[in-house]
Amino acid sequence: MKQLNAEIIGVGTELLLGQIANTNAQWLSEQLAKYGINVFYHTVVGDNLNRVKQSFSIAEERADVIIVTGGLGPTEDDMTREAFQAISQMELEIHEPTMEKIKAYYANQHRQMTPNNKKQARVFKECQVLDNRAGMAPGMIVSHRNRKWIFLPGVPSEMKHLVNYQVFPYLKKLMGNQDIIKSTVLKFTGIGESQLEHEIADLIRTQTNPTIAPLAQHNGVVIRITAKEETEEKASVLIQDVKSKILKRVGDYFYGVDQETMEAQIITQLFKQNKTVAAAESLTGGMFTDKLISVEGASAVCPGGIISYDADVKQQLLGVPEEIVKEYGTVSRECALSMAEKVLSKMNTSIGLGFTGVAGPGELEGKPAGTGYVALRTSDGYEQVESFLFSGSRNTVRRRATLKGLEILFKYLKAQN
Amino acid sequence: MKQLNAEIIGVGTELLLGQIANTNAQWLSEQLAKYGINVFYHTVVGDNLNRVKQSFSIAEERADVIIVTGGLGPTEDDMTREAFQAISQMELEIHEPTMEKIKAYYANQHRQMTPNNKKQARVFKECQVLDNRAGMAPGMIVSHRNRKWIFLPGVPSEMKHLVNYQVFPYLKKLMGNQDIIKSTVLKFTGIGESQLEHEIADLIRTQTNPTIAPLAQHNGVVIRITAKEETEEKASVLIQDVKSKILKRVGDYFYGVDQETMEAQIITQLFKQNKTVAAAESLTGGMFTDKLISVEGASAVCPGGIISYDADVKQQLLGVPEEIVKEYGTVSRECALSMAEKVLSKMNTSIGLGFTGVAGPGELEGKPAGTGYVALRTSDGYEQVESFLFSGSRNTVRRRATLKGLEILFKYLKAQN
Repeated sequence: MKQLNAEIIGVGTELLLGQIANTNAQWLSEQLAKYGINVFYHTVVGDNLNRVKQSFSIAEERADVIIVTGGLGPTEDDMTREAFQAISQMELEIHEPTMEKIKAYYANQHRQMTPNNKKQARVFKECQVLDNRAGMAPGMIVSHRNRKWIFLPGVPSEMKHLVNYQVFPYLKKLMGNQDIIKSTVLKFTGIGESQLEHEIADLIRTQTNPTIAPLAQHNGVVIRITAKEETEEKASVLIQDVKSKILKRVGDYFYGVDQETMEAQIITQLFKQNKTVAAAESLTGGMFTDKLISVEGASAVCPGGIISYDADVKQQLLGVPEEIVKEYGTVSRECALSMAEKVLSKMNTSIGLGFTGVAGPGELEGKPAGTGYVALRTSDGYEQVESFLFSGSRNTVRRRATLKGLEILFKYLKAQN
Repeated sequence: MKQLNAEIIGVGTELLLGQIANTNAQWLSEQLAKYGINVFYHTVVGDNLNRVKQSFSIAEERADVIIVTGGLGPTEDDMTREAFQAISQMELEIHEPTMEKIKAYYANQHRQMTPNNKKQARVFKECQVLDNRAGMAPGMIVSHRNRKWIFLPGVPSEMKHLVNYQVFPYLKKLMGNQDIIKSTVLKFTGIGESQLEHEIADLIRTQTNPTIAPLAQHNGVVIRITAKEETEEKASVLIQDVKSKILKRVGDYFYGVDQETMEAQIITQLFKQNKTVAAAESLTGGMFTDKLISVEGASAVCPGGIISYDADVKQQLLGVPEEIVKEYGTVSRECALSMAEKVLSKMNTSIGLGFTGVAGPGELEGKPAGTGYVALRTSDGYEQVESFLFSGSRNTVRRRATLKGLEILFKYLKAQN
């Protein structure tokens, strides 16, 4: 096994002006750590040819692998290629497949391609081109003076795609025979980080391979299990074993692993159970349905929804009885339940959800911002309402209410299995 | 006025492992930019004496002001002081007021003070001590070989407090009489970064004060105008003047400045024009309405919407005529227009929008993923449809379609003024 030391260089004046944080370096570091590659330095440099050149020269002296993000775009500010050319004397050429892609893009958009767009299609003659399926500028891997240079676009989604599908397979090969580091993330909802940690404290303390690390994320808590073994199979066995131990204790809050989202799990369950769902959304204003529809294939199990933000829409289009609005108000358990029932019947689904509440910042019907109700109703008469009082800004409240709805629906479907 | 160039060094292995992003550097950069101090480099280095020393030596060669965050704590990993001592030969001494504070803290907590806590009280003999009211370790300002070294704790709240109340007053004095730096961001939609740059290339090239810098962001392109003047008023006049020049050429694509969003501009216009809007969303599945409702006060101008993902919902609930679906399909100009017209009438609004298309990844009705139509229809009979073919993942297509809808609605409202 060969030990590699890496440096990550972010190129872009927007980083030095503080307009964005260098989250690319953070993400790359996290991934490289998993593969057992040491990261010794991060550097950020602006769009200035001399300073980019100097940063490259310094990195060349102290790293085996240099990952450069940014500066590959079409504008005059983008000078990563020029800087590396200056220190390496390597020649650039047009990458024809990229050129074709750029031309096709402009043709499709009925927009004029300006001359500077050609810049993006240039690659080093001796490089391995990394095909960028998420954007225009391709990435490159270049060997030079016994160093590996990996050039990546600065847009996070494009960078991550190239790294996952092309850079890591390359680095793995480069490192030769090597203990496999495998990790899995277990995702939980409806439980706090400290409670989760408390429930499995002894496991966290005693486990060394795999290790167990809980982390709080903005939409719930996750546990990362990381194993180091000779083969992927052996690592998987270790992970599976610890996963079972953890789920025995906190399985009620578990909803998926790794890239699995709660909305994707919901869609899978709906398919499996041959059920459909629709929501009537006031507070969340479409955010809940949008989440479901973000999942591939959602069309078959979610025919649509009604956004009934206004009280009149709740009554006239959706059919919530006037008495309910009059007696309990629109921000009430009763209204949420009626919304769930009515949307189920209008959309002819097996499950209906209703969301109502006060997004804020002001109060409504005498109830404070952050108050809300999520109801679930099924065609066979089951019903459930949960109330909440969230703190935070208008859109934090709306996001948390959406999450609450996903949680309620997911738990309901899980209990039917 | 003296021009200062700064480098920001973050010390801490947690940064190199990707456990946290270097938000300290981002915040510091943003603040320094406002004061007109150039930041040319960020460096991140781990808790390793040799590598911290090397980073300090490199920074000394290229910056006037070096701001170091982190590595001042009580543990063995904290070695910022040791590294600077090694390159400067400056001596350390115990800072008595800090020592007293640490002792008092442990006494209050009824906890035993461990010997390593003494480490935090050490400061350089010739330094200006920055009293840390939010934590234990004091900051320091040290002059050495004509460079100013500013050592700050890594905890963001402590760091920010010291910078706001002690470091900036110091830097201001150091820079002497100083110009104000003022900047404004102009936001555009429906134009690419390269085309925008092309349209104003001569201005970018010839303007030095204010400077003009285009930047691509995920929901459009922005131009940052930055002026340097004796007073805020003079800077504003310069900015206003360049803004007018830019808008004369590309004003059609302009929608707001600084923190203004397109959705907020739309809500403002709707209020101003006493109009209301509702959308029927297939492709976008609620995302468009969600955007509008994210704006405070949206309830008064957006009563709701219909998410008609399924063809049956389009026909039965929304009322799109069967002939349209049969003759043109649901992914068609005709269907988008009918959706806009029907939602307007169901919701009784002055404007209706219809979104239909193929989110993907598969094709639909013989049309490829990424195809879509956005229609706008008003109660007085005006109608407009735009078609598009976006590339990217399912959710990229959906996001871009939502943005297209916002753009169409915004432009329509703008034209009514």
